[in-house]
Amino acid sequence: MTIKGFRFSAVEAAIKKPGRLDLALIFSDVPAQVAAVFTTNKVQAAPVMLSRDRAKNGSARAVLVNSGNANACTGDQGMRDALSCGRRTAEILGLPDEELLIASTGVIGQQLPMDRFRAGIQPLVDGLGSSTLDDVAAAIMTTDTFAKIERRTGQAGGVSYQIEGVAKGAGMIQPNMATMLSFLVTDAAIEPALLKSAFGEAVEGSFNAITVDGDMSTNDTALLIANGAAGNPTIKTGTPEAAQFVDLLQEIMLSLAKQIVKDGEGATKFVTVKVRGAASNADAKKAALAVANSLLVKTAFFGQDANWGRIIAALGYSGAQLEQGRVEISFDDVVMAKDGIFAGGNAEAAGTEVLKKPEFTVAIDLHLGAGEGAVYTSDLSYDYVRINADYRT
Amino acid sequence: MTIKGFRFSAVEAAIKKPGRLDLALIFSDVPAQVAAVFTTNKVQAAPVMLSRDRAKNGSARAVLVNSGNANACTGDQGMRDALSCGRRTAEILGLPDEELLIASTGVIGQQLPMDRFRAGIQPLVDGLGSSTLDDVAAAIMTTDTFAKIERRTGQAGGVSYQIEGVAKGAGMIQPNMATMLSFLVTDAAIEPALLKSAFGEAVEGSFNAITVDGDMSTNDTALLIANGAAGNPTIKTGTPEAAQFVDLLQEIMLSLAKQIVKDGEGATKFVTVKVRGAASNADAKKAALAVANSLLVKTAFFGQDANWGRIIAALGYSGAQLEQGRVEISFDDVVMAKDGIFAGGNAEAAGTEVLKKPEFTVAIDLHLGAGEGAVYTSDLSYDYVRINADYRT
Repeated sequence: MTIKGFRFSAVEAAIKKPGRLDLALIFSDVPAQVAAVFTTNKVQAAPVMLSRDRAKNGSARAVLVNSGNANACTGDQGMRDALSCGRRTAEILGLPDEELLIASTGVIGQQLPMDRFRAGIQPLVDGLGSSTLDDVAAAIMTTDTFAKIERRTGQAGGVSYQIEGVAKGAGMIQPNMATMLSFLVTDAAIEPALLKSAFGEAVEGSFNAITVDGDMSTNDTALLIANGAAGNPTIKTGTPEAAQFVDLLQEIMLSLAKQIVKDGEGATKFVTVKVRGAASNADAKKAALAVANSLLVKTAFFGQDANWGRIIAALGYSGAQLEQGRVEISFDDVVMAKDGIFAGGNAEAAGTEVLKKPEFTVAIDLHLGAGEGAVYTSDLSYDYVRINADYRT
Repeated sequence: MTIKGFRFSAVEAAIKKPGRLDLALIFSDVPAQVAAVFTTNKVQAAPVMLSRDRAKNGSARAVLVNSGNANACTGDQGMRDALSCGRRTAEILGLPDEELLIASTGVIGQQLPMDRFRAGIQPLVDGLGSSTLDDVAAAIMTTDTFAKIERRTGQAGGVSYQIEGVAKGAGMIQPNMATMLSFLVTDAAIEPALLKSAFGEAVEGSFNAITVDGDMSTNDTALLIANGAAGNPTIKTGTPEAAQFVDLLQEIMLSLAKQIVKDGEGATKFVTVKVRGAASNADAKKAALAVANSLLVKTAFFGQDANWGRIIAALGYSGAQLEQGRVEISFDDVVMAKDGIFAGGNAEAAGTEVLKKPEFTVAIDLHLGAGEGAVYTSDLSYDYVRINADYRT
């Protein structure tokens, strides 16, 4: 089914270079609510500062997004430019400035090419309805190798509604948001407080549970816009309809998050790091992140080397509570270490077979408590180095 | 000059494979004091647990060290083996067990090859005096490509004394000790409290100020043994002789630390990250470490890409207090960013020239306070990935 009351547009503005879509617009035909999360980096791009402020009142009708330039570390000029592009777009759309949010991704520290950006705005607005959300997904890519999109259909009071989302990632992916943009739209009618809590919960289990290189960007932005155009009875907290909405949203966001990791710069493996038996859920996530971010662990994944010693070493410095004599580590269902020492037997050969697969799980049991958590990550390959050594050239 | 009252030995015991020195002994002919620091990883190798305990009383006569096997995550068997090797060595040397410290480096999670280790002990003790500290430096290497050694001569009360040290590093190098072993010996007579404080201070400014990949090992050990055999009047706290001793010790340890970074796995650049103007010295170090550990920054160094945006992004998530509009970043004397934005002019070209050099400094001024600190690091190259993907094979 088609999402109601939203129109999309994407054009080529040659922000960084010509030859690709790099300017996109998401527009709701009717007033809409927004839930938003932004980078926690203390260095923040102009569009992040601006959109954070505008999203606070909980309503937004449009999102203007460009790739090719992050408009970060661009000072007063960068803020003036963001305001100016936003004002021009809002003007043509007939919206108050505050109803339009802005996001940018690309190189840090260069001023926006304002002539080209401004020239793109009229065609962008004119194109509303002739592009799809897939075009938006394509326009926000930077070093991404494929567009990331996911859709689900839900039901409330006998009325179908749609949730759809796009994301871009590829590098600088680390919990608490990274150079990651994600825009989600739904035509469901839903209580504002529920929209906000559902989004926060889904972010924690998806975008805040992935890591490619441990770097955290200046531009991360995730937005969920709900316009109620499906005409369903408003979904209320505590109902089965609310539970379904939350589930569908989480499915979409987890799928987008996993797509980001799979498209991690140079990634050849998709690895789920699951920790249980931790003293707390927070400890479990801390432990999983230390493993997922360890260069020695990630290069061992790339080398298909069943080197569980690097994993236990990472657990040891993770900051999570731990007794080394209790730690258990498995690759899929192959137990590599038990009671903190090598499990022996056929583990080395069987574990190596697991690591040859493109996707596997590192399952860790700290045997301390009931805390659990999962993090999704990639390996570290020659190509990660190549891509990032060459990114600006 | 030659250090007095110490003898060294190094033999081939084929711990991991034949063809290289891998078992070493440092021995003081007379009673000696020791200052020691160990990994803060919660997962600790058997020799670390054992030596930490033995070093507590402040005296030690000998250090037994092997490469090729870390004896980490080896459980009760590993501890029994460490105790047994230590006992056998102490027995032949005629020492109480507690006067001998043990250190190991190599692969985690495999039991020591006890037959070969034990067979090496008698030749090792027999060889005392026929090997040099350079042989010890060679015997403790793992993926190191060169042996790391440094020496200084001091004077106290008209008597010359010697300080000498060796280290191994290469991978898993991260502050608060990493798979880093360092053994320092001096024939100076020195007050125990001064020995301890001088060592702690020097560790903070050297081994705890280097990072290659952010991983922290299970086996880090640094020891300073002082036997007083030079015959100088005991160096006392607060004297010019004490200041000289501290200076020389710091010179040696900083030199060893820098050698470790230069030999970082796959390193092609030696980079000093200096932060000043921070809210505190602790904040300065935190900021410098975030920059030094950022994969995006390190791959940009490898790519000789003057991408200061990645540096300011790392500062932003470092946890250090920061106002983005005040940040100044220079490559050597080329100002790349001022007031948080690109410095303009010729900075891009001039900064790129700096990054083409094998050694350069990233100087950061947060313009907030009087805090300052420095961290030494390397770039991240294809070879880092190659070495660590293949380490065990």
